[in-house]
Amino acid sequence: MKTPPLLRLTFILFLIILLFTCSWYSLNLPVFSDPPKSITSWLGNSKSRVCAHLGSVLETGIHKPRDHMEDVPHHPLDPLTMQEIYKARTILSTYPPLLPSFPAIHSLSLEEPHKDLVLKWKEGDPLPPRKALVIALLNGQSHVLSVDLDSGLVTSNKINHGSGYPMLTMNDISVAIQVALSHKELNKSTIKRGISLSDLTCITPSAGWFGPNEEGRRIIKVQCFSNQGTPNFYMRPLEGLTMTVDIDKKEVVKFTDTGGGIPVPKGTDTDYRFKAQKEPPKMKPINPISIEQPLGPSFTVEDGHIVKWANWEFHLKADQRAGIVISRAMVSDSETGVPRSVMYKGFSSELFVPYMDPDENWYFKSYMDAGEFGMGVTALSLVPLNDCPRHSYYMDGIFVSWDGKPYVQPSIICVFERYAGDSSWRHSEIPVNGFNIREARPKVSLVARMAASVGNYDYIFDWEFQTDGLIHVAVSLSGMLMVKGTPHQTADQIPNQEAASGPLISENLIGVVHDHFITFHLDMDIDDTNNTFVKVNLVKEETLPGQSPRISYLKAKRNTAKTEDDARIKLKLYEPSEFHVINPSRRSRLGNPAGYKIVPGGNAASLLDHLDPPQLRSAFTNNQIWVTPYNRNEQWAGGLFTYQSKGDDTLAAWSKRGLAFMASRNRAIENKDIVLWYTLGFHHIPCQEDFPIMPTVSSSFELKPVNFFESNPILKAAPMFEKDLPVCRPATSS
Amino acid sequence: MKTPPLLRLTFILFLIILLFTCSWYSLNLPVFSDPPKSITSWLGNSKSRVCAHLGSVLETGIHKPRDHMEDVPHHPLDPLTMQEIYKARTILSTYPPLLPSFPAIHSLSLEEPHKDLVLKWKEGDPLPPRKALVIALLNGQSHVLSVDLDSGLVTSNKINHGSGYPMLTMNDISVAIQVALSHKELNKSTIKRGISLSDLTCITPSAGWFGPNEEGRRIIKVQCFSNQGTPNFYMRPLEGLTMTVDIDKKEVVKFTDTGGGIPVPKGTDTDYRFKAQKEPPKMKPINPISIEQPLGPSFTVEDGHIVKWANWEFHLKADQRAGIVISRAMVSDSETGVPRSVMYKGFSSELFVPYMDPDENWYFKSYMDAGEFGMGVTALSLVPLNDCPRHSYYMDGIFVSWDGKPYVQPSIICVFERYAGDSSWRHSEIPVNGFNIREARPKVSLVARMAASVGNYDYIFDWEFQTDGLIHVAVSLSGMLMVKGTPHQTADQIPNQEAASGPLISENLIGVVHDHFITFHLDMDIDDTNNTFVKVNLVKEETLPGQSPRISYLKAKRNTAKTEDDARIKLKLYEPSEFHVINPSRRSRLGNPAGYKIVPGGNAASLLDHLDPPQLRSAFTNNQIWVTPYNRNEQWAGGLFTYQSKGDDTLAAWSKRGLAFMASRNRAIENKDIVLWYTLGFHHIPCQEDFPIMPTVSSSFELKPVNFFESNPILKAAPMFEKDLPVCRPATSS
Repeated sequence: MKTPPLLRLTFILFLIILLFTCSWYSLNLPVFSDPPKSITSWLGNSKSRVCAHLGSVLETGIHKPRDHMEDVPHHPLDPLTMQEIYKARTILSTYPPLLPSFPAIHSLSLEEPHKDLVLKWKEGDPLPPRKALVIALLNGQSHVLSVDLDSGLVTSNKINHGSGYPMLTMNDISVAIQVALSHKELNKSTIKRGISLSDLTCITPSAGWFGPNEEGRRIIKVQCFSNQGTPNFYMRPLEGLTMTVDIDKKEVVKFTDTGGGIPVPKGTDTDYRFKAQKEPPKMKPINPISIEQPLGPSFTVEDGHIVKWANWEFHLKADQRAGIVISRAMVSDSETGVPRSVMYKGFSSELFVPYMDPDENWYFKSYMDAGEFGMGVTALSLVPLNDCPRHSYYMDGIFVSWDGKPYVQPSIICVFERYAGDSSWRHSEIPVNGFNIREARPKVSLVARMAASVGNYDYIFDWEFQTDGLIHVAVSLSGMLMVKGTPHQTADQIPNQEAASGPLISENLIGVVHDHFITFHLDMDIDDTNNTFVKVNLVKEETLPGQSPRISYLKAKRNTAKTEDDARIKLKLYEPSEFHVINPSRRSRLGNPAGYKIVPGGNAASLLDHLDPPQLRSAFTNNQIWVTPYNRNEQWAGGLFTYQSKGDDTLAAWSKRGLAFMASRNRAIENKDIVLWYTLGFHHIPCQEDFPIMPTVSSSFELKPVNFFESNPILKAAPMFEKDLPVCRPATSS
Repeated sequence: MKTPPLLRLTFILFLIILLFTCSWYSLNLPVFSDPPKSITSWLGNSKSRVCAHLGSVLETGIHKPRDHMEDVPHHPLDPLTMQEIYKARTILSTYPPLLPSFPAIHSLSLEEPHKDLVLKWKEGDPLPPRKALVIALLNGQSHVLSVDLDSGLVTSNKINHGSGYPMLTMNDISVAIQVALSHKELNKSTIKRGISLSDLTCITPSAGWFGPNEEGRRIIKVQCFSNQGTPNFYMRPLEGLTMTVDIDKKEVVKFTDTGGGIPVPKGTDTDYRFKAQKEPPKMKPINPISIEQPLGPSFTVEDGHIVKWANWEFHLKADQRAGIVISRAMVSDSETGVPRSVMYKGFSSELFVPYMDPDENWYFKSYMDAGEFGMGVTALSLVPLNDCPRHSYYMDGIFVSWDGKPYVQPSIICVFERYAGDSSWRHSEIPVNGFNIREARPKVSLVARMAASVGNYDYIFDWEFQTDGLIHVAVSLSGMLMVKGTPHQTADQIPNQEAASGPLISENLIGVVHDHFITFHLDMDIDDTNNTFVKVNLVKEETLPGQSPRISYLKAKRNTAKTEDDARIKLKLYEPSEFHVINPSRRSRLGNPAGYKIVPGGNAASLLDHLDPPQLRSAFTNNQIWVTPYNRNEQWAGGLFTYQSKGDDTLAAWSKRGLAFMASRNRAIENKDIVLWYTLGFHHIPCQEDFPIMPTVSSSFELKPVNFFESNPILKAAPMFEKDLPVCRPATSS
């Protein structure tokens, strides 16, 4: 039974090396003197056979990998190209304060030009100076560097003196796992559970911040799972086993094993891969179905990033931290056809995911996924036909690995036209009125999508643009639950079910209750930057005696938010409001100010104690809506340095409400360039249906024109006619 | 300029006759000795040319009209066939208490068999006795009659002694309009406004109930609009002009004209018909796009009403009052494939639409559309390709006109498979964990849809069934606003904008603020009828000192509702719960009870004073959720006799909360056959984009399995493969 420990360790190390060379693109980029034309094809050529046995990529379509080495920027907001990244790296590598050892690059991306430069820029103009914003760690210090690519100079180098560390790199994660796997106590714990070290897969929950105990050093947690017999190791936790690793010192600073007696769940039927399914589901099969556009899609993507469709135009890119970013969204005026500004920039600024278990092995699970791991860096290639429909356009991400070199994350955004069989408006007229009318118009929209796989969880972000001017922003959750091992096989074995941190979702597995909060940064610029936030409150009025047979009615009362305090909103069903961002100086012909309103859909609020460390750090979820004056340094609701931060650089801190003992900023927001922040929340009490992989759950909000157009902008839209629709036949294989 | 009044009146009467013979099918059915094979084709042959100039039906496809004369019932819940309706009429016409004059038939539809009979029935069994439930008005009395079609006997005849009258008939509406149009004072009012009587189109807002003033007689309001130059007469109100008509006495009992000085709006650019558009909208055209299924849809409709698709099976029908009705919804068990009951019956029981203006001409506008007008009776044929996608199946409604004769409302329900490019689950695995996985599954669902045009407003009802067991119920609003004339052309002319009952949405037009509340009757039968309602409250817990670095966490606490009081729910963002209907005796292998939860989406609550007459009658909107024990007489949240009712037979009355001076029923609901009621609300503050026709606005809720399945029921679902998808080419015309 027993293999000598040394042999086993050698095997593990081999495995680790194999894993990392086969996998994360950034980890195995050679030092190019002549960079390859396509990273994907390079990977494909050299590694595919070695890696094949390790996983399975659903092959339902092939994209042509694009060559990005010749990319040049066309727009002030275009992400850094591969050549620009190499250039920035070269500049950094000769910058004296960083010598002699090259720092770990935690972020290297476009330093967006000042807004006024971007707004002034017109197609054909020379680009504003191209700059890289670099976050680097050197000797335990976080540097924020500004690199001017034109002059070749580092123009700014600031060291972070606040709390927190930069976003983790893949190297941090792999170091942490290697350190943990090499820890001598681990072997005893795995043997105790009957698991072989070689069957371990370990993950790296962020440590959070919980007081002075772990301050002053970069700490991460490592927890392990058995992957024996299943790639869905998430369902096979080695419960109770947590290693706290000092990433920089490369040592386990705390080893906890409280899991005695909790078996590793068997993992039966947890493999969700198609190739592992032995029989079809017990339901009638569904015939092939597809959104078809034989004349092709109606949108164009110009210069790599400018999407134009129907009456919309916007800049689209993938950012390593934010994921999908929509910029300069403009919609054509329905009267003149002239593009009008709606939103300068929209993206998910932070994701807060607190788990509801105070246990030693669980309390720290209060992820801030964007700032800790990155929503772009964890977005992998979308699966054609299954993540996105036929006729989708796929966009790559150009990201930077910890050694400062660029890599291509292929096909992480898709753009497609959606037609779901719905109507954008309709009316039929009962002939009793003298008009026998039946009119309806199909609803076709444009979707830009990205899916981030932050470890176990998948977040699908959809930005959907409608011809009536509405932007529908949806987040869909799928992937795997974060589960907790339990000695119990059935619910009635659990002595006090209410004491468990969630329901039993499979034998020996508790689905721990948790929340998800996605905070969007919505820099609305309605027509221009001079905007105002108006709450339109619906208030019950009582009639006067004798005035009317009615006793009550509602009245819409407009309240202009003068300062940030006026715009901190907790949604209340029984105190309803509309929330408008208007341009007070742009009036319709009737005199109504042009505006957009944010329309919440289903939502959930954080109920944690405001002084609880995770909530302190994520105090930006204390309201569903905030409005701040535009400040280019206020992009990240959870702070620029989120990892292990105390919450001293967050939306809630910038916009601090006045208390007796602290200075209140409560900045003016009327007639200003303002940013709207909206938090979309989910409570998740798991159930058996979430095992072993969760059916998608969605929620959304809308940005909707209010007196922005003079009238319904799609009044003149044409219906669909049979004669125009595609002629289709079954596939040859059917 | 002036035509002699008599000549004009003759013309008007001719017009009225023309309108009614051309239009409402029920009004011009001849007395058949040999009924026609198809009402639609009959209408088409005899009237189409006469009617052509009166309106325009968007011709984007043709359905084959179905012959319903040979229809026979196959299922206990199948609606009455045409022959059964004729038979019921014959039985009624010889029933002595109704002699000699045949009553006005306000409703004649299947009296659904007792639930136990339906549940016991199996395919192949003889049907339980077929009965008609008839609501008829005779000499001012409302009769509820039960007609046994087998024995040919009227087995029950009850007279309504409570408040309220039956649903209006088309005859009531046309009588009211004729009476109003013939009223001598009308001419003066129209001339004053520069409008010709021949250009009037009048509508019949229900009168509501506002105390003893209008009690004891059937009263309706009539208001008129100018249709000159536009079929969108709704945008041309003769503001301030209201006639109160006694429907049975055929007289105007009150004539109000308070509209002096309010011009009739010009109606410029209000014609929304495609043929009236002179130019395309100012946007890039959208290429043809379609949901294609060259092997056809995957669902079947058996015996006219049983829909089977993937793992779902349900009975589908159109009801004259409720509109679309889903019965006996069953989903296959994912382990055994055996169908399991989810919902016995689901439909929209009432729609409450209060307008927010206490003015003499507006206070009464507090519609209860289902009980006053009927959601089925106002559902007209859906427009192929524009209301529903290609490959839709269309279902007709067989309804009964006021003379007791059947008529066909063709194609008022469509059924189709939806694929919108989304995924039903997905996960990709960062290769750092040793597995390079990208798996996703397309989401295909089945939609059953109906669109009711209750005068100006259109309500689209979607029941969407997903393979993961989820039912998504959506209501989408479109059509025309109910607008109020104003002397003002621009907002700055309005002396006190806040005093107006809504924003200016076009010259001389106020979009009056209003609400919509759609109350669903959801008779959940999870596995069988023995069900329990459980609130799973998420409650903040504090940790003990030293217990954990965390201060707080959430705990899911299950609370079983013993009685109706426990299940009256007002949704609160900061007091969140899940709402489960479970079968306590059906346990998963882990011991969790099988259940479904109702998942609210965006919602709005009624804020009217509880003593305000409209709110008294619609007190069922005082909570978003109610649970009642099943009672076959409790189908209509607004009461069986809604019209002019006082609210004495509503959900709120049946389930009355205990007060000192009134008997509380507060019935037991634990381990019972229970019905869940959910109200979906919208606040609507209009804006210019809603003019002249509103872009669709949607909201929804979900019924979602919770430990109903042993695990994710679509784990084994296949992905889409390119080789299976249709091969399409552009249409010849493109």
